[in-house]
Amino acid sequence: MHREVALQIAQFQQQIEEIYLDRDRERGSARTFAWLVEEVGELSRALRGEDRANLEEEFADVFAWLASLASIVGVDLSQAAVTRYGAGCPKCHTTPCSCPPA
Amino acid sequence: MHREVALQIAQFQQQIEEIYLDRDRERGSARTFAWLVEEVGELSRALRGEDRANLEEEFADVFAWLASLASIVGVDLSQAAVTRYGAGCPKCHTTPCSCPPA
Repeated sequence: MHREVALQIAQFQQQIEEIYLDRDRERGSARTFAWLVEEVGELSRALRGEDRANLEEEFADVFAWLASLASIVGVDLSQAAVTRYGAGCPKCHTTPCSCPPA
Repeated sequence: MHREVALQIAQFQQQIEEIYLDRDRERGSARTFAWLVEEVGELSRALRGEDRANLEEEFADVFAWLASLASIVGVDLSQAAVTRYGAGCPKCHTTPCSCPPA
């Protein structure tokens, strides 16, 4: 199910930069983080509801604010993801994770 | 700077599924959401600090928990991102966003 849309992480971050970076950079990382948290709250509400389209929108919104915040502070989300998870779980280094249950 | 690592969103979600989905699904969406929020808190702390490697890790962790939560509830993060942001800002439908400042 995950193969239909071949959008790269870096492309998405670039796209969000083109849409929002100027105003997000002006707002700054602290206030942009506050917006990210607001979107996480909206995702929480959507998870409790029955509206699938809204649920998908809220996942996209959290992802978009995370990407924009990363851009503001100069983090390449794609590079960060590969560095952190490219060799499996960053703690036990296996796939699937074999850490003790948390 | 964002072109070095051509990792697709769907590949990342798939990778996180392979590492964590069995245990995350068992934990359920409510408790996995709680972990996502914990990671958002760690990102907040990293944003205030000076440790770049840790900052990148925290961005990756929020992204990973978001992807895993999406998998638990059957949301394709890549599809959601394209549907929501593929035509620019979802509110004003332009790039860059021309909505009134919030």
